[in-house]
Formats: sequence, structure tokens, C-alpha cells
Amino acid sequence: MPLHEERMTGRSKTAEVWFPELDSIIRRALEEDIGSGDLTTRALIKPGIWSRATVEANETLILAGLPVFQRLFQLLEPSCLFHPSFCDGERVSAGKIIANVEGPAPALLMGERVALNFLQHLSGIATMTRHYVDAVQQWDARVVDTRKTTPGLRVLEKYAVRKGGGFNHRMGLFDGILIKENHIAACGGVGEAVRRARAEVPHTVKVEVEIDRVDQLEEALAAGADIVLLDNMSVENMSMAVQINRKRTLLEASGGIRLENAARVAATGVDLISVGALTHSSPSVDISMHLYMEE
Amino acid sequence: MPLHEERMTGRSKTAEVWFPELDSIIRRALEEDIGSGDLTTRALIKPGIWSRATVEANETLILAGLPVFQRLFQLLEPSCLFHPSFCDGERVSAGKIIANVEGPAPALLMGERVALNFLQHLSGIATMTRHYVDAVQQWDARVVDTRKTTPGLRVLEKYAVRKGGGFNHRMGLFDGILIKENHIAACGGVGEAVRRARAEVPHTVKVEVEIDRVDQLEEALAAGADIVLLDNMSVENMSMAVQINRKRTLLEASGGIRLENAARVAATGVDLISVGALTHSSPSVDISMHLYMEE
Amino acid sequence: MPLHEERMTGRSKTAEVWFPELDSIIRRALEEDIGSGDLTTRALIKPGIWSRATVEANETLILAGLPVFQRLFQLLEPSCLFHPSFCDGERVSAGKIIANVEGPAPALLMGERVALNFLQHLSGIATMTRHYVDAVQQWDARVVDTRKTTPGLRVLEKYAVRKGGGFNHRMGLFDGILIKENHIAACGGVGEAVRRARAEVPHTVKVEVEIDRVDQLEEALAAGADIVLLDNMSVENMSMAVQINRKRTLLEASGGIRLENAARVAATGVDLISVGALTHSSPSVDISMHLYMEE
Amino acid sequence: MPLHEERMTGRSKTAEVWFPELDSIIRRALEEDIGSGDLTTRALIKPGIWSRATVEANETLILAGLPVFQRLFQLLEPSCLFHPSFCDGERVSAGKIIANVEGPAPALLMGERVALNFLQHLSGIATMTRHYVDAVQQWDARVVDTRKTTPGLRVLEKYAVRKGGGFNHRMGLFDGILIKENHIAACGGVGEAVRRARAEVPHTVKVEVEIDRVDQLEEALAAGADIVLLDNMSVENMSMAVQINRKRTLLEASGGIRLENAARVAATGVDLISVGALTHSSPSVDISMHLYMEE
Amino acid sequence: MPLHEERMTGRSKTAEVWFPELDSIIRRALEEDIGSGDLTTRALIKPGIWSRATVEANETLILAGLPVFQRLFQLLEPSCLFHPSFCDGERVSAGKIIANVEGPAPALLMGERVALNFLQHLSGIATMTRHYVDAVQQWDARVVDTRKTTPGLRVLEKYAVRKGGGFNHRMGLFDGILIKENHIAACGGVGEAVRRARAEVPHTVKVEVEIDRVDQLEEALAAGADIVLLDNMSVENMSMAVQINRKRTLLEASGGIRLENAARVAATGVDLISVGALTHSSPSVDISMHLYMEE
Amino acid sequence: MPLHEERMTGRSKTAEVWFPELDSIIRRALEEDIGSGDLTTRALIKPGIWSRATVEANETLILAGLPVFQRLFQLLEPSCLFHPSFCDGERVSAGKIIANVEGPAPALLMGERVALNFLQHLSGIATMTRHYVDAVQQWDARVVDTRKTTPGLRVLEKYAVRKGGGFNHRMGLFDGILIKENHIAACGGVGEAVRRARAEVPHTVKVEVEIDRVDQLEEALAAGADIVLLDNMSVENMSMAVQINRKRTLLEASGGIRLENAARVAATGVDLISVGALTHSSPSVDISMHLYMEE
Repeated sequence: MPLHEERMTGRSKTAEVWFPELDSIIRRALEEDIGSGDLTTRALIKPGIWSRATVEANETLILAGLPVFQRLFQLLEPSCLFHPSFCDGERVSAGKIIANVEGPAPALLMGERVALNFLQHLSGIATMTRHYVDAVQQWDARVVDTRKTTPGLRVLEKYAVRKGGGFNHRMGLFDGILIKENHIAACGGVGEAVRRARAEVPHTVKVEVEIDRVDQLEEALAAGADIVLLDNMSVENMSMAVQINRKRTLLEASGGIRLENAARVAATGVDLISVGALTHSSPSVDISMHLYMEE
Repeated sequence: MPLHEERMTGRSKTAEVWFPELDSIIRRALEEDIGSGDLTTRALIKPGIWSRATVEANETLILAGLPVFQRLFQLLEPSCLFHPSFCDGERVSAGKIIANVEGPAPALLMGERVALNFLQHLSGIATMTRHYVDAVQQWDARVVDTRKTTPGLRVLEKYAVRKGGGFNHRMGLFDGILIKENHIAACGGVGEAVRRARAEVPHTVKVEVEIDRVDQLEEALAAGADIVLLDNMSVENMSMAVQINRKRTLLEASGGIRLENAARVAATGVDLISVGALTHSSPSVDISMHLYMEE
Repeated sequence: MPLHEERMTGRSKTAEVWFPELDSIIRRALEEDIGSGDLTTRALIKPGIWSRATVEANETLILAGLPVFQRLFQLLEPSCLFHPSFCDGERVSAGKIIANVEGPAPALLMGERVALNFLQHLSGIATMTRHYVDAVQQWDARVVDTRKTTPGLRVLEKYAVRKGGGFNHRMGLFDGILIKENHIAACGGVGEAVRRARAEVPHTVKVEVEIDRVDQLEEALAAGADIVLLDNMSVENMSMAVQINRKRTLLEASGGIRLENAARVAATGVDLISVGALTHSSPSVDISMHLYMEE
Repeated sequence: MPLHEERMTGRSKTAEVWFPELDSIIRRALEEDIGSGDLTTRALIKPGIWSRATVEANETLILAGLPVFQRLFQLLEPSCLFHPSFCDGERVSAGKIIANVEGPAPALLMGERVALNFLQHLSGIATMTRHYVDAVQQWDARVVDTRKTTPGLRVLEKYAVRKGGGFNHRMGLFDGILIKENHIAACGGVGEAVRRARAEVPHTVKVEVEIDRVDQLEEALAAGADIVLLDNMSVENMSMAVQINRKRTLLEASGGIRLENAARVAATGVDLISVGALTHSSPSVDISMHLYMEE
Repeated sequence: MPLHEERMTGRSKTAEVWFPELDSIIRRALEEDIGSGDLTTRALIKPGIWSRATVEANETLILAGLPVFQRLFQLLEPSCLFHPSFCDGERVSAGKIIANVEGPAPALLMGERVALNFLQHLSGIATMTRHYVDAVQQWDARVVDTRKTTPGLRVLEKYAVRKGGGFNHRMGLFDGILIKENHIAACGGVGEAVRRARAEVPHTVKVEVEIDRVDQLEEALAAGADIVLLDNMSVENMSMAVQINRKRTLLEASGGIRLENAARVAATGVDLISVGALTHSSPSVDISMHLYMEE
Repeated sequence: MPLHEERMTGRSKTAEVWFPELDSIIRRALEEDIGSGDLTTRALIKPGIWSRATVEANETLILAGLPVFQRLFQLLEPSCLFHPSFCDGERVSAGKIIANVEGPAPALLMGERVALNFLQHLSGIATMTRHYVDAVQQWDARVVDTRKTTPGLRVLEKYAVRKGGGFNHRMGLFDGILIKENHIAACGGVGEAVRRARAEVPHTVKVEVEIDRVDQLEEALAAGADIVLLDNMSVENMSMAVQINRKRTLLEASGGIRLENAARVAATGVDLISVGALTHSSPSVDISMHLYMEE
């Protein structure tokens, strides 16, 4: 039904990344850069000039954030047009054009830097995630993210992890239970902590508990833990935990996992490999935007 | 005057990094993580338990963001106490305690992750900046940042650059003129663009223009440019530009500068070396927080 | 002038309920429900599917809040279309279709619950108000609301009261004077309190005073009260107050008025009957929304 | 440790209900009522008068919202003092004093109505919830809430449900999967929908699916549903579902459950009974506040 | 009761001007001036220096806005101390010290300009208002303000009018009815418009109607107008209107009233004289702040 | 390219005044006036009536703020149409029509007063600025504004100064260095203060220092001040400063400059004349809006 298709284009492309705070995040980033106005553009560019721009990958990357990029220009100036050549999650080779944008020159000039900052940061995360995913591809383990994200950008960064082929862990403190060392100490043991959580929390939420010794696993299982996090364990201990567990619960490997050792960890048979570096240390990828003034 | 000293402690420690939006940035980061409430803490920790925590450097780093870290806990719970052992800008060796915090256990548990996310990210930037600063230390060039920052965190990231020993370029489009390729094209030449900017903009603002050929330098100087950015030039061309310039204006080297070649660039005699990677690709440094419950 | 008519449709339908905060109230309600994203829709529904929905009354009700319902979907996704069969203030019999909505399936699925929450709550208030209005219809008394509203929804709830046939009392502390027991005590008497208010407040604002004994009425009248609230008086005392008043001021009956005794109160000849329960205890009415996916 | 205890009093009392948006919700409610200023108080009350107030239950109720009540006065005027006699979750008999408040008269007068609006609404929900909990107490079923909440107050209303002895269902679309009729239709069946959700969503989230025929239960179980919602089923069908299930998954009864039939539903052996009326139709309970001016 | 007095000092001084948006207005003004940080103070002033300042009237003025001035420094830095010598509404002679402030030097330096901008603007309005009030003092007419205020500052400007001895007209479109020419045209006459408004609006709100011919007055009176605005009438016509009215309603003179002719207008016997210039054209008064660094 | 031209019309007309906060400033001004709704319009005007309005200059003025005026109606109701006859910066003679607006009657009635408040205030500033610019036109001095602006409106007021022919000084504390008396005292002298600022601040920012004695000029020049502010100096001393300076730096005259003496100050040869009165004391100009209802 083409009529509807067309009407929906704008928003539906952002459906997978959309959440109510998205526009506010973009607006604050623009406000941070433009502040009381773009002095250079105001002095030198006539408002009426239309311009076109190409967005180009300067290195091979996994794309993430294109709907944010598009939405940013739309918020700056609704008349901007956007013609993407790739979708989030796709691999873009160095030198390829990711998208074309057109609109009034002041809008493109004012939005360029911030739009690229989003796209380069999120694609950097997707690209790094894909490296991890590729590293463990012959095993069943999911690569998952953590709460070690850049303040203010968590939902977007976790979206980028998904586009890179990873999976999300809980979004924050509000949508999952992760019982850590301190909680265990306060409750007097792994089993008691898990039981107390079970009794209190919504039935819709899974209970995960962190252990740092293999011998705590049976206690966690007995108390009904849905997920057990193996904290900073050696590969040998992880293997032992996998054997003891016999698929009764999900096992998550966490701590000290790098691209170099990810495969060895996956080979132990753990279900989940969580990697903080995906979101706190992925370098930005190199993308640039070239403008052409009309008239 | 001790009375005053004490009263001032809270805010004055944050004076160098303070700006009106700071609390909002911290609050949004907490909101993003805590959302509708911390399920685990609510289920397992009695509100009345007091706890102490040590903040420890797990690798050697240049510290940045401690006042943000402190302010975060103060916003979560005003009764939290903070005892820093280092100041922002100082080098902290691996294994050293950066600070002690104490407060109600729920507050420390709820704030821990986000507070570390700020501190690890900003210290990562300061640490990387210091590497660049050290690399060029025998020359006069300032290492400066760019607008390639993480959306929403620019003022803090530029603060971290200063703490690393770098200097700030303009904060955004609103507080400096940087005439780029597209502006030049729209005006019909370097000289004309600089002159037009000069005629329009506040007298308090310096006019910087980007050139990509050495032969444009005289035109920029003649038009009265305060700063000239040498865009992606070879080291040879930069040297030539320095000689032609004879200190008449500030010269900024930009594009493709890495830790490995920074010294060679600085050796050309340029005044400024701008490095986008400081803010878009510095990995997080490793800092952890250990809690001890009291009863 | 059809062209204009059409252009105006969107906003003009909401004109009676519109006020500048409306969009923010809707957005916060969506944010509260959708948060970091709709997990179920994201996993299961293709963005491009168009869907249609019918909104159906499952019990007989007085409608209120349809423009809010419509605006919510418009804010979620501007391409949504809305075809109402009834207007706010109309009686809708059980089983009738209130409106049809169409739009991208993710938008309808994400907005459904919150949109219904608004509509069921406001129609609940309008329906209850209509019961009171019907109960007193043979007398002149206006049924009016109070400040006992649900925090955050006052303007909408007072709109629902109007659609139910009731009238509004003051909106808040800022647009009317209501001198209560404590103010009277602080001023040393009904007359003094009324006189002092008269002398201070804008000439555009009416002065209302609360009395709990009939013998205070003359003092209030003498001091120039525009409205007198009879607080928790017996029907006999209200009748006496009406006789003493002889239409010199408006008399408002307040306290302990229920559907069962509203007619007896109205029969005393009071001008206004204020009922807190309209806004603090009206049960939600039953409305449902049925979706049909297109392909 | 008394020093800490005391310092913590203010915030720790609100720990169970606290979430980052709480102050904003209170502030908006005050803004809605006070707007451009309290005309009556400004005209009649000297700022310097100190006053005391008692908060009294006019009917027997289950208390919920006292920390919100307290926080409201603290936000209006930090010098206000609060002396509670009961805690949230306790039964308060008609005529009992819930708390004493003291502070500057203008603050108590300006905050009274909105503070009571919160307390009466939330205690109304807790009281109604307790009725349901009492009704099913001899069975194991949890009484749980729904997403049918008052727009803008969901987190607080769900807190009130917990204080009434109920449990929470998912908070919103972001922290749980509930596959409904429309999602099933779009996926082509219960099993396929559950499997697809399983494959996509974070491992921390449980997958719940709604069925309206008992014969769909095995398909749901086979696909790995964590929770199955029995939609508007007869008591007989629910019993049959319980027998078929044999504790393999959690069963939730939903639709048409009232205080009168709750026990019969619980007797079927379902694990969860969800009741929308808890949050959308609980009447406010009657609480009043009496002020005494000092001189 | 000294203990309470002291605790209340901070807020109670601002009681007359306080309204929930006040802090936001101050914060936005600070944000507008300080933005990403005070470059000069950061470079030159040590955070720990304590300073004192005197606030001095450089011309004779009527003071308004001192609580806003005080609150601004409190928001910037809670340790600031404030010692006022005058109250809002008092006449301050040229050369007198209005107040002393002390606090950390960075706070005083950062807040000085914005604090003075508020105080000079509001005192300018109070001073101009007092001139009008003095001009008409031998008659009974109230000098009232209008909605011709500076965008964003209306509540504060109307407060300044009160402190100058004037009175407030309605605050905005939400708290009073003023039927103007266009409304009358749409309703088909003065009488019909007044009657329709009467029938619709809350009983707490007065109905004012604007007439521009004396012969419309009887129609307005017959329809029950509470206030009649005499729009741009000659003094002779105003006198005639006063005679016809015989105190039956309030008469407001509006349009073209200047300090020079205010007395002649008042002499006609009108009840209210509204002057837009009070808020849209009062020049700022001259107040300065002198700092003294300690140590 | 007509297609693009048309699409761009809306936003591009506001390009020169646009900055990210603009819509928020307009929205807050509307919120301040409309609050919980326009009682008069709601009672008397049918939503569907279309109306036209002319905006007329009642005195000769320099126009500023027309894009703000237009944007306000667009925000209230997107269907409003706008037909300007003049551009910001142009002189409009008394009696001329500035623009025509059309739209739904409720939108025009609700927006009229606030839209005019913006336009009259900003045009007042532009008009006053033009008087100063005309007064000094035979000399080279720029007329510049200050930070003495109306809280909340600085960016707009500084835009109005530009439209009047003046130039902007720094926008706030964040985009320029102005070393004043207190900073100098804290640093121990003009030269030391300038040198310290130079060493610390971004290379993109100019350093201005205030002196009140001519003999401080050489010290400022030697230390490398980019701009020197001559604070409250006599015309004779300014002339002397100009001679000493010999164009080495920019000289700004500040303090006590009025329309009457501006030419004499300009004649000294200073580069900049800063006038606080432009923004803090320009009276509003007289502009009115006349509506015509269609049927």
C-alpha cells in the first residue's frame, strides 16, 4: 500500500532505535555545539543556498546510528532530504558512500559535526562488537554488553551493540536483578540473597547472581538463580562450572575478556560473554561528510 | 578563615569544572541507569546501613572527573562524605587509592556504576592527552582538542583535556570562527571569506581559516586571519608554512596526527596540534570501587 | 472555506482542551510506559506493517479525552489517521465504536495502553459528573469540581468535569481566593479576612470565604464576599443560609455530598455544589481497542 | 551509629519509593496548583508565622505515600519538620493521627492540598490492594498490578500496590515481554511468537504470552514461555490450565477479576492474579490535615 | 520563637515573590550568561578566596527584586551570606547601600551581572510605578498593570508593580475574562458576549468587557459585566461613563495614559488606570556591586 | 530552484536569529500567558473560524523580531500563514503594515499579545541602537552591546542590536575574557592578569582588560591585551589613550555614554562604544495587530 508506505518512511526507519528520549538527546547535543548560534555560518552563508552532501566511510566498518544521523538533520530543518545506501548492521567498505543528504546549506553546515559524532561513535561500537561476535562464532555464546556505557548514551550504545551482532544485558538497575558481592555480604550468603530476591521482585524479572568460586554454583542453583555470573574466573574454572551446571541455568562469563581470549572463553561452553569494552573503549570509526553548494 | 573554608568546601572543589548544566548531566545519567528504581538494592539492602568504599586505580592514569564523581553521590544523597587522596590532573599509579567515600549503602550501590563511568571516561581522556603532551614537550606547540566529542559530554571532555595538560580549541560553533572549505567556496576565496567574517563578527572573537595549500597562507594573512589551520598537510608543507608565517599568526596542524607522529609535527614549529582522538577514541581507564558494609 | 477547514482539523479539534503543557503531559506518560523501548514490538513486529484499530465502549459512558487520545498517536507517529464517531461530552452506549485509528502497527501497539489510560480515566470523570448533574437537574445549582485532583492531571480532569456537564471551581491557588478556617483564624475573623483580601488582590479575582456557622454569613456579606462556602452544613442550615442571603452572594455547598443526597442539597437553593469525588474517586470506564494488521 | 542514622533520616525513609523522577513529579504537582502564586496566603498570612499540623485518617486505611507527603513539604520549604506515627504498609484506624508536620504557615498552607492528594490517592490503592490480598490469602497466588495506571503516576501507584501487599507486574513496555493477540497474529502463532521473542530479547527478560484457549498452553510451554497469561478464561478453564501446566511455568489469571470472585480464581491454583482496578479505579481514602498557627 | 525564625529566614523572605517557576527562571538566566563556564574567573581567581560585596544604589529608586537577587547567589553557591539593609517596596536614596553579600569570590563574580540585571530591571519597574501612584494619589483609582510584559518575566514584573504601589490586573489568559473587540464581533454584540461568558466560565472569575463608546456601557451593565474597560476614551467620555455607571461596576481607563495625564484620568473617577508602559518601557535603574577580596 | 526555495521558506527566514533554545523561549512565554487555557476564547470563539490580521507600526521604527513573531504562531498552530512586508533591520514608517497573518481565530487571539510583546521589545532595541549608530556614523567606532540584558532574552536582544546596526560584544562569560578591576586586584596588576589569562585560555579567545587610568595602557599592551576597555574615562583621557595606542590594540569606551555624548566619544577615535542602555532601557515601540474574522 504505497501511500501508507511513504507516509511512514520517516518514523518507521527509526523504529528499531526509537525511544521517547531520543529527540531530547539529539537536541541537547545540538544545543551543546550551536549554543547561541553558529557565528561562521551566519557571517558567510546565505540562508537560501541549497546544498548536497555525501557521507563516506573512510575505513571499513559496521554501520550503526544512521536513523539518529537522519533524525538530527530533520530536527534542525524539516526540509532536509535523506537518501541512505546502507542500513544499520551492514558492513560498509572503506570508500563507500553511506548516504546522501540535501538541504539548506546552513542546516547541513550546522548539523554536520554532531551528526558525525553520533554516527562515528555508534558505528565504532558496532564494529568492535562484530569483531567479538566473529571471534566466537563457532560457539553458542552470546556476546553481551554491560552497564559500563558513556553517561547519557546508554540506550543508543546498546542499540549499536545489537547492530554489531551482540545482545543486550539488562538496560539498568530497573529491569534486571544482578546480585553482587556486596549484596551477598549484606544478606549472608549466595543462597539467602537469591531466595530473598525471588520473594520480593516482580515475577517478570530474572534473578542473576555473581559468584567468584565454582563451589558457590550449587548454592546458587539450589536457591533458584536464573542466571549465574562467573566473575573473573579462569578458563579452567569456567569449564568446570559449565560441567557442574548441566544447562540448568544460564552462565555468564565476565571480567578480563578481550578480543584475544574471547574464543577460549566461548569454548568453555558458557552461554554469555559480557564485554564492558564494547561500550566504554571502542574507538570512533572514520566517516566524513562532503558538501556541495548549489547555485 | 576556617569557617568560610569549610562552608566552601563542597562547591569550591568543583569550581574549575562547574558550569550550570553539570547537575543536569549527572542527573540524566543517574536517571538512565536507575529509571523506575534499583530492584536489587530495594530487595536486599536495608536503607539504614552505612557503608564505606575505596576508589582504586587499577592502572596508572591521569585523574580527571573527581568533582563530578563526588557531586554525583551528593546529588543522590546529601549525607555522603568524600575524602579524596588525589586531585584532577595528578598522575595516580596503579594500585593507589584515589578517594574514600562513605554514605548509606543504597546510595553507594546505586551511584557506583555511573560515577565510575564518568571517572573512567574522563580520566581516559586526560591520560591519553598527557601522552600527547609528553610526546611534544620539547617544542612549544599546544596540544588542543576538537569538536569531535561524545554527544552530551563536550564541556566535561574538554575539561579532561585541560587536566591532561592539553588546551581547548573553541567550545562550539558559538564561540569561535573556523572558516572551512565549504565556507570558502561559498564566499569565493580565502581572503574574501576572512574579510567578510572580520566585518561581521564580534570584535571579541578570533577568525581562524583552514587552508590545504601553502600558497593560500599569504592570502589568509593579508586578509587578517588570527589563526590558520593547516589541513592534512605533510610535515614538509607545515615547515614551509611556519617559515612563510614568521610568527605573524598562529598556525594549527590538523588531520592525521597520531601519538607516533606528533613529535615530528611539533618539530615543524606549528603553534597548535589538534587531535580529535583525544575525545572520540580514548579508551576508558580501569578504576574500581570496593564497598564495606557497616552494621 | 474547505481548504482552511482541512488545514485546521488537527489542532482545532483539541482547541477546547488545549493548553501549552498538554503535549508534555502526554509525552511523559509515553516515556513512563515505553522507557528505553518496547521490547515485544521490537522483537515481533515489522516496522512497515500498517494496522487499523477500533476503539469500543464496553459500557455506557460520557466521553471525555478523545482529543488527548488522538494527539497521543499523532505525537508517537504523525502519519496516524483518526476517524472519530463521537465528540467529547456525548453519551456513548455500550458496544458502540467511539473511533477508528490507523497507522503503523508499532505506533498503535506502543500507544494503545497509555491512550486508553487517558481516555478511560477522563471519561470516568465525565460519566460520574453527569450522574451528579442529572441528579440535580431540576434545580439551578451548578455541580462544580474542587482541587482534590490527581497530581499532574488537573487541567485535564477539570476539562472532563465540564464535558460531563459540571462547571469548574478555581483551577488552583493562583486564580481565585478561598479564605478557609486557618486564614480566618490568622486574621481574627471572617469580616477582617474578607476585607484584607479585597484590599490586596487583583480586582479581577472574586473573594470566596468559607463559613461553618450560619451566623457568620452576615459578617461575610457585610465585608463584601463574592462567594460564601457553606462548609459541611446540614441541609437545614443550608436552607437557612439561602434565606438569609437573598441572592446577595453566591452560596456554595461543600462537604459530604454524595450522589444520594445531592438532590436534597440542591433543593435548598444553593448556587453551587462542589464534589471532590468527581476527580478523586471516579472509577475508570471500560474502553478497549482492537487491532487488525494489514499486510 | 547514631550520627549516621540521623544524617540519613531524610532520604533513607524514602529509599523504598525513591527513583530519580520523584522530585519532578512532586514539583509539577505543586506547580500545577500554585502556578503564579497563592493569592490567598499572600494576602492574609504573615510569612514569619510558624504552624503545626496533624494529619488524620478519617477512615480505616492502609497507608502509602507518606515519604512523598514528607518530601513535598521539604521541597516547598526545607525547614519543615515531620514526625510520622505510622509507616507505609501499616493499617491506620479511623481517627488516628498519621503524622505531625510543622513549618512556616505559608508552606503548610500551600502544600496541604497537593500533599493530601498524593497521600489519599496512594493510600486508596494500597487499601484496595489489601482487600484483594486478604481475599486470596489462603492460596498461593500473588495479586499483581497492570499497566492500567494513571498517566504520570505509574511508579508511585505500583509502589502503593506493594505496600498493600500486592506484587508488581512489569513496569512498562521496556522491562518485560508480554506477547498479546496482535503480536501472535503478526507472527503466525503462539509458538512462533514465543520462539522469536526468545531469540531476540535480552536473556535477563522473561517471556510471557497471552492465550485465550486452554489448548494453546502446550504450544506456549513447548516454545519456552516463562509465564502464560490466561486471558478472560472461566474458572473452569483456569483449573484445567493449572492441571495441564503441572508447575512448568507461571500462570497468570487476567480479566474480569473482582473482589467478589478473586478467591474463586485463586482457588484454581494460578500463580498470579492481575487486577487493573487496583490502579485505575481505587477510590481515594479520606485523610485530612488540621493546622494550628503559633504566634 | 527564635529557632524557627532563623530556620525560616532563607525562604520566608522570598515568600511574597515566590512561585514554583522562580528557581528555573534564575537558573536559565545564569545558564545564559555562564554557559560552558566563566573563562576569566577560571583563569584568574583561586576557588578558595572569600569575598565581600556591597550593593549600592546609584540613583534614588524604589526597590524590587531583592529576594531574587539573594536567591540567585544561594543557587550559585549555598554558602553565600546576605545582609539586606532595605526591603522591597522601600525608597532607597542615591548612594545608600542596599545590601551586603559575601561568599566565595568565584560565586560573587559569576553571579554579579545577572543578579544586577534582575534587580535593576525590577526596581526600574517599581520606581516607574511609584511615579504613577504618586501622580494619582489624591484620587481613589488603582494603577494597574497589563499583559504587555517582557516575555518570560511576567510574574516577577507584576510583583515589581505591586512593590511600586500598583495593583495587578489578570496574570494571563487563564485567570480572568477580558472580552475585546474581536470577541464582541464574533458574538454579535457586547451584551451577548458578556452573557455567553457568564454562562460558561467558572463562577470564581470576573467578566470584564472592553467598550469604546459610552453608549455601550448600559448594555454591558445589563448583561452583568463585573468590570468595564474604557478603551482609548477621551477624558470627557470617561467622566460621562463614570456618571452613567453610578458605581454599579468597576471602570478601567486604558490606552494612551502617560505620567503627564494620569492625574486628569484619575480625576474622572474611574476605578482603575492600566498602564502598559510600567512593564514594557520602564528604564533600568542604576545599581552597582563592589567586591572586596579577603586574604 | 523553486521547489527547494519553497520548502525552505519556513526555517530559512529565521536562520539569522535561530539558535537551539529559541522554541523553548517562545513556548515558555506562551505558557506564561496561556497557562491552563484562554478562558475568554474558549467561552466565546468557535474553533473553526478562520481569521486574518494586519500587524501595523504605530510609530516609525527599526524592525527586529519578525521571525520570532512568525515562529510563535507556527508553534501555536502550524496552519497559520504569514505574509511579511518588511524584513528585520528595515525602517518601517508609522502607519505601515509590517505583515499579514492568517489562521484559526483561537490561535491568533491566543498568540497576539505575546507575539507583540516580543516584536515591540526587540524592535525597541533595534530602534534605539539605530539612533546611536546614526549619531556616530561619521566615525569608525562600532556601537556594541553589553551583558546588561533582560534575563532570559540575551541572544534575542543581541540579535536586535545587530539589526539596529550595532555589533555584539561577548555573549557571556563563556566566550570572551574581560578582566575587570577585581580580577586585576586578585592577580596583582594589569600586566600579570593579562599574562596569566593568555597562558590559560583557549587560543581562539581574545583577552580584553579594563583600565581606569591612561597610564595603565602601556602595561596592558606590553602584556599582550587584544582589547582594552577604557572604564568611565573623560573624553580627554580617551583621546590620550587613542594617541598612545597607535592602533596596536582595540580600544573600547565604556560607562556613561548617552545618545547626547556618543558623537563626542566617537570623535576621540576609539574603536568601540559600548552602551548598556541599548538592552536594559530601550522603551518598547508601538505596534498593534487587528483581527478580522471570516465566517
